[in-house]
Amino acid sequence: MLGAAGILQRDEVAQLRRGLSRIRAEIDATGIPDDAQDEDIFSFVERRLGELIGDTAGRLHTARSRNDQVATDFRLYIKGLCRRSALAVCELRRAILGLAGRYPDALTAGMTHLQIAQPVLFAHQLLAYDQMLQRDLDLFAHAYDRADVLPLGAGALAGVPYPIAPELAAKSLGFARIAANSMDAVSDRDFVLDYLYAAAMTALHVSRIAEDVIIQNSQPFGAITIDDRYATGSSLMPQKKNPDVAELARGKAGRIVGTLAGLMATLKGLPLTYNLDLQEDKEAVFGVEDSLLPALETFAGMMATLKVDPARMAVLAAMGNSAATDLADYLVAKGLPFRKAHAIVAGLVRDCERRGITLAEVELKFLKQHSAKFAANVMQRLDPRWSVNARTSPSGTAPARVHAALASALAELSARRALWEARVPSYERRRRMTAGPSVRKRRAQS
Amino acid sequence: MLGAAGILQRDEVAQLRRGLSRIRAEIDATGIPDDAQDEDIFSFVERRLGELIGDTAGRLHTARSRNDQVATDFRLYIKGLCRRSALAVCELRRAILGLAGRYPDALTAGMTHLQIAQPVLFAHQLLAYDQMLQRDLDLFAHAYDRADVLPLGAGALAGVPYPIAPELAAKSLGFARIAANSMDAVSDRDFVLDYLYAAAMTALHVSRIAEDVIIQNSQPFGAITIDDRYATGSSLMPQKKNPDVAELARGKAGRIVGTLAGLMATLKGLPLTYNLDLQEDKEAVFGVEDSLLPALETFAGMMATLKVDPARMAVLAAMGNSAATDLADYLVAKGLPFRKAHAIVAGLVRDCERRGITLAEVELKFLKQHSAKFAANVMQRLDPRWSVNARTSPSGTAPARVHAALASALAELSARRALWEARVPSYERRRRMTAGPSVRKRRAQS
Amino acid sequence: MLGAAGILQRDEVAQLRRGLSRIRAEIDATGIPDDAQDEDIFSFVERRLGELIGDTAGRLHTARSRNDQVATDFRLYIKGLCRRSALAVCELRRAILGLAGRYPDALTAGMTHLQIAQPVLFAHQLLAYDQMLQRDLDLFAHAYDRADVLPLGAGALAGVPYPIAPELAAKSLGFARIAANSMDAVSDRDFVLDYLYAAAMTALHVSRIAEDVIIQNSQPFGAITIDDRYATGSSLMPQKKNPDVAELARGKAGRIVGTLAGLMATLKGLPLTYNLDLQEDKEAVFGVEDSLLPALETFAGMMATLKVDPARMAVLAAMGNSAATDLADYLVAKGLPFRKAHAIVAGLVRDCERRGITLAEVELKFLKQHSAKFAANVMQRLDPRWSVNARTSPSGTAPARVHAALASALAELSARRALWEARVPSYERRRRMTAGPSVRKRRAQS
Amino acid sequence: MLGAAGILQRDEVAQLRRGLSRIRAEIDATGIPDDAQDEDIFSFVERRLGELIGDTAGRLHTARSRNDQVATDFRLYIKGLCRRSALAVCELRRAILGLAGRYPDALTAGMTHLQIAQPVLFAHQLLAYDQMLQRDLDLFAHAYDRADVLPLGAGALAGVPYPIAPELAAKSLGFARIAANSMDAVSDRDFVLDYLYAAAMTALHVSRIAEDVIIQNSQPFGAITIDDRYATGSSLMPQKKNPDVAELARGKAGRIVGTLAGLMATLKGLPLTYNLDLQEDKEAVFGVEDSLLPALETFAGMMATLKVDPARMAVLAAMGNSAATDLADYLVAKGLPFRKAHAIVAGLVRDCERRGITLAEVELKFLKQHSAKFAANVMQRLDPRWSVNARTSPSGTAPARVHAALASALAELSARRALWEARVPSYERRRRMTAGPSVRKRRAQS
Repeated sequence: MLGAAGILQRDEVAQLRRGLSRIRAEIDATGIPDDAQDEDIFSFVERRLGELIGDTAGRLHTARSRNDQVATDFRLYIKGLCRRSALAVCELRRAILGLAGRYPDALTAGMTHLQIAQPVLFAHQLLAYDQMLQRDLDLFAHAYDRADVLPLGAGALAGVPYPIAPELAAKSLGFARIAANSMDAVSDRDFVLDYLYAAAMTALHVSRIAEDVIIQNSQPFGAITIDDRYATGSSLMPQKKNPDVAELARGKAGRIVGTLAGLMATLKGLPLTYNLDLQEDKEAVFGVEDSLLPALETFAGMMATLKVDPARMAVLAAMGNSAATDLADYLVAKGLPFRKAHAIVAGLVRDCERRGITLAEVELKFLKQHSAKFAANVMQRLDPRWSVNARTSPSGTAPARVHAALASALAELSARRALWEARVPSYERRRRMTAGPSVRKRRAQS
Repeated sequence: MLGAAGILQRDEVAQLRRGLSRIRAEIDATGIPDDAQDEDIFSFVERRLGELIGDTAGRLHTARSRNDQVATDFRLYIKGLCRRSALAVCELRRAILGLAGRYPDALTAGMTHLQIAQPVLFAHQLLAYDQMLQRDLDLFAHAYDRADVLPLGAGALAGVPYPIAPELAAKSLGFARIAANSMDAVSDRDFVLDYLYAAAMTALHVSRIAEDVIIQNSQPFGAITIDDRYATGSSLMPQKKNPDVAELARGKAGRIVGTLAGLMATLKGLPLTYNLDLQEDKEAVFGVEDSLLPALETFAGMMATLKVDPARMAVLAAMGNSAATDLADYLVAKGLPFRKAHAIVAGLVRDCERRGITLAEVELKFLKQHSAKFAANVMQRLDPRWSVNARTSPSGTAPARVHAALASALAELSARRALWEARVPSYERRRRMTAGPSVRKRRAQS
Repeated sequence: MLGAAGILQRDEVAQLRRGLSRIRAEIDATGIPDDAQDEDIFSFVERRLGELIGDTAGRLHTARSRNDQVATDFRLYIKGLCRRSALAVCELRRAILGLAGRYPDALTAGMTHLQIAQPVLFAHQLLAYDQMLQRDLDLFAHAYDRADVLPLGAGALAGVPYPIAPELAAKSLGFARIAANSMDAVSDRDFVLDYLYAAAMTALHVSRIAEDVIIQNSQPFGAITIDDRYATGSSLMPQKKNPDVAELARGKAGRIVGTLAGLMATLKGLPLTYNLDLQEDKEAVFGVEDSLLPALETFAGMMATLKVDPARMAVLAAMGNSAATDLADYLVAKGLPFRKAHAIVAGLVRDCERRGITLAEVELKFLKQHSAKFAANVMQRLDPRWSVNARTSPSGTAPARVHAALASALAELSARRALWEARVPSYERRRRMTAGPSVRKRRAQS
Repeated sequence: MLGAAGILQRDEVAQLRRGLSRIRAEIDATGIPDDAQDEDIFSFVERRLGELIGDTAGRLHTARSRNDQVATDFRLYIKGLCRRSALAVCELRRAILGLAGRYPDALTAGMTHLQIAQPVLFAHQLLAYDQMLQRDLDLFAHAYDRADVLPLGAGALAGVPYPIAPELAAKSLGFARIAANSMDAVSDRDFVLDYLYAAAMTALHVSRIAEDVIIQNSQPFGAITIDDRYATGSSLMPQKKNPDVAELARGKAGRIVGTLAGLMATLKGLPLTYNLDLQEDKEAVFGVEDSLLPALETFAGMMATLKVDPARMAVLAAMGNSAATDLADYLVAKGLPFRKAHAIVAGLVRDCERRGITLAEVELKFLKQHSAKFAANVMQRLDPRWSVNARTSPSGTAPARVHAALASALAELSARRALWEARVPSYERRRRMTAGPSVRKRRAQS
């Protein structure tokens, strides 16, 4: 860009390119020397460049400052990280939708307040998880878009006195837009918080799925079993198979929420423009990356290999007098106001409890004692399958709705994954070294 | 909708409408009785409806649950709150851009690390604030869009066994979409977190502006004065004028960040679907609303009435040897590599410090002692105005750039404000009672 | 104090006392007028005093500033709040220990990873909760001690030029110590954070107990039932009894953690001394008070009335092959190294799973197939009661240990409660109006 | 202990000791092999022990579980970390008190709301910092005491069926007490949060000092200069000397607060007893350790080498009409009520502002125009030194008070440091390998 804009001479550009290529080759071969005394990666490159091409090396820094450079590098890094995170979410969605596809008609106990409430299809619950993860992909897309702005040309804070052409640099580095205000460009880390927020929401959602897995895996539920590859034993208790992967994922959610809050606290009350406090953004992001990506990967593996016991799930689905709502709806259909029907069935359930039986065991005679409106055709309503089939409202759990929703989720996933896969970072497209490691090793500053 | 879908008879619908209108009129006239024993607003309405129209009142609850109703009400509320928040941000932007318009050419000290770094236009700094606030408007738009989904028809968690037409209800209530999955619909509070995140980011940005105001208002800076309406005195010290509004706004940022982190902690690890823990969403949102909206309003008032001392600002802009970068650029233009020029000027500054003078006071002879390349035309570079004029890169502080950026920010603000103003909530459009108070007074639950 | 130190004349003191008594009586009778235009409670009192006793009212503020006054008031408030919080924790301990006393020998399923691990006494688990709450009382004692320092005499920040005797004021107001440094005295809010930390830890502990309650109350566990007074139904599902109190307490933990983090974020990076940001301490504390105290009270009520099903608990205790560790210990006693024993029993459990039986159902012959060391006396080890009786290590679940621990916890509770009850605030001892409401209504500031 | 309690034979104990000594020597020499396939450090040791001494190795795990072992190790680690943290705080106190000792009588501008309020001694402000840090040492002492409880004997969760003597192990490992309840012992991480809270409070206090340093170092203040060893330059601006160390310390406070909130969120709602989520405690603590200790160390270095400009400080102290309070006090001494005096001086200050002068420049005649009570001896009150000398209240800034406070702080520091230095961990006393690295490398679990 400096060449194209006429700021450097053509031969200077050629010299710089030659030197930089050589340095890249050296780093590819042997890495950055551990004993390098340089303050950061920028100083290292410039010093080595000087050794290789002499005084022209000093021209490399023309029209730029570490303030706008480090912002540029970190935006490249966040864009790549959004992509990797989104693809890991896609992989988890694939595992969850795959599970739904293997058990399209299994019943399970729909719960509110961890009380069995109404029977639902297991696939319906899995599709609720998928909805959460779809929203996470939206958040990563938002963070990507926020990071997609080139700060080069902001200099230290005021702009630069050279006729630069940042739109050329943007095109070459794969940025969609250039920054509008130099002071904002060097002090803005909103894109980092946007990434952390997307990561925290993803972790929250995974923690909710994890809680369900841990509970359903507990012996009194016994509805699912975690594959041995994703469970571990106890050093003392020979019989244990612990849901480690789910617990770790649940635990990470706390950590990631704390990281988001922590970086927000760090940014609070900072005066313009760049302050060294901003350097905390690196540790925050690298820490979240190291927490989230492996957790998503192993969690996807656990979900893909989950063993489901549909018979036990059906038993749970019938527990807790879960047919009560359907009995009330039956009375409504017979002309009773909903409130009256609700009261009759509540009395009926209390009567069952007194007798130590459940709704699943009652006879028609018993029902008729509570309302004369109950006729023989009410008995089918005590079957959870009937209940599920009846809930045909657009977002409901009736099989036709669920099967259609599954097909549509798979199509959505396929389109979304393709979109993210296409966002290959510019530095990878050109087979260059990634910005990642270089950013990680440097100590940012102006 | 229940009528249109054939679930209720026409005369039942008419009765219900009549009763509900009467209740609304009663509430408008005398409020909800303080001694109401009902569990929540829904129970209150249904009970009163029963008193007014008899048994048909029991039909009101057909095909719905408190779980989907409270989610619907809160989504309406959040949509309205996004609008009010966004308009308050617009008002702050108006005050900031107005200030920029009054001082389009005033110099100020651009700072990094709270060290005077380079002179910039005061309006340039104000436009950096405007960039932050533009991003906040994006976040409120995102939260609005997230809330814009109708959960009705989800029932308690599984859908409802009635041939409902949620798209009719969506149209009538002003929702853009209907929920895809009933279990997700009753347990999803992502739209609440999205709002809190937008609020927290806004508060962070305002806290950064507040820090600048407090520092520039401090006597050793003395660049701005806060109008008496927005400052207060001391009970003990007769001379004090404290920047209360700025401090309060800065303090609120901590509170709002904590509220976001707190609700995230509450949601972490909750099993599907609805749990009463979710009720914390109300207190979180109302607390943030009560913190953010008044803070934005008074902060906008403070910014609109800020007294600026351009002469003092110009003095600050020349402090701290802020011309040093321009001297280095001068040497680069004379053919020196940037690094060499940087080293020469650094030596020159150290020499000044030894002599107890600043760059603003040096003579050409002195400069020539450090480099023979310095010629007479270097002296103009010691003027901060020259420095500002030179920074013509697209995001830079040169007057032409800044004036264009100001015009474009004003146009953007005007368009954005119109968009938000148009989003009048359905309940206001029909002059109905707002969902707000009703949601605030009820205790949600399933 | 101003009189005793000779700063005010005796008759001035008498006049001030008379006027203040009259104002107190007025407030007791009619409250603070809603239409009062005063900036805060201090201004209100001084203005009204002027109306009552004339110019001498102006002497009231001698040797003090709102900065040291508001710090004094808030320290009094926090001391009272520590006491009320600690007594609420004592009440919860009483409920929990009472439950343990009613079921001293009931078995329950000890869990790790929400997997049934080893049988324990139910009372042993309750005593684990009691340990947590004992630590919370330590934290409230620490916060109380931190607040127990009198800041009066610090003035606005630098001390006062009067020969005051703060130790007299400390004695009269019930403070243990006086502040050492005036600048610290007006800007220190550590005692507030110490209170919030104690509150957050208490809420965390209650949230863990709540999670156990919610899970054990879930139908597939079915070990406990929440009394109807502490559970609520569903508007749609007639059979539901939801553990509302436990869920609310669990949800509050998130809110309180967020409040702590939020106030920390607010304090971060504030320069000395007083800044208006500190005013956020009030909303934080009042919000936590309103969350924690009612939650503790209803939670204690719920625990005191919990219905326990010891038979179901015993069934759970035997689930999950929980005798496996005891079989391994048996083999160790017969001379096998622990690791070898562990491996044999792990194989035995896998064999059971293959056959679809549990350890509770195996015969001696089957055991002998896995190790010849198993003899007839191993069969008693399959009884959970045997397992519990064997764990006689000092912190273990053997009945003798648990019964002794219960007695000792009750004695500890009694002593601790007496200590807290004795800490009656000075303002209550003298039947004066509490500092509480006055602090809550004022807007602090210097 | 297992030998002393008769659980293992004397020769078994000897064999185990021999094997363990050999393993320690191996690790000291070559570390833990990177390619070790073991699940954690415990498995590694036991496997290697088996290779060295055969079957007896299997006896090592008798009467213990990883659950109680990892809790024991981590308590040892936290105790050591409390000591190292407290000694680092002592070092910072030493630097701050040393600075106070070098400038016992320098004036500086005491500020509220970042407005110059009243002159104070610079040493008085430094002693305010020392008060904060004293409280931090209390918190580390509290956390140390919390960690000082031995969990061994809790087994996996229920206690162990062996006649163990945990008080022997406690004595040998340097623990003050043994755990009272096995279920609590394996699931309690309060001591970790107590440490994180102490660390967060320390970081908050340092962030407040850092803010003062950054502001006083800013050119318009210009009261202090950071030594070149603790400041860095700019890659673009040759004149810059940035307060990096102070900014980093300020930034770290956000991170540490976030870590505390994050681990609290992780613990919220966990059922008893051990869950793998608890493993997050390691990353949290190691992250805070890596943030806090270096920050304290460099910050102490920066404070110890801070260059102070007493002349400039004296100028600042007189700015902002800081004598106003003293003029009001003068009128009070002449018999005016404080409020009247306050009003007169406020009018006087406004008059000065209209005339463009400050109180430091007024003449007696001018004063007399505002009140006839002003006599010649009022003029001395316009000298900041007079103001400081007058504030003789016990916590005030008068030189005699400050000098005494400094002496007492130095004595307190000396006693406190000795106490912490004496708490050498048991593992270091015996020149054993530290628990630290072993804990850090293992992956905890039951």
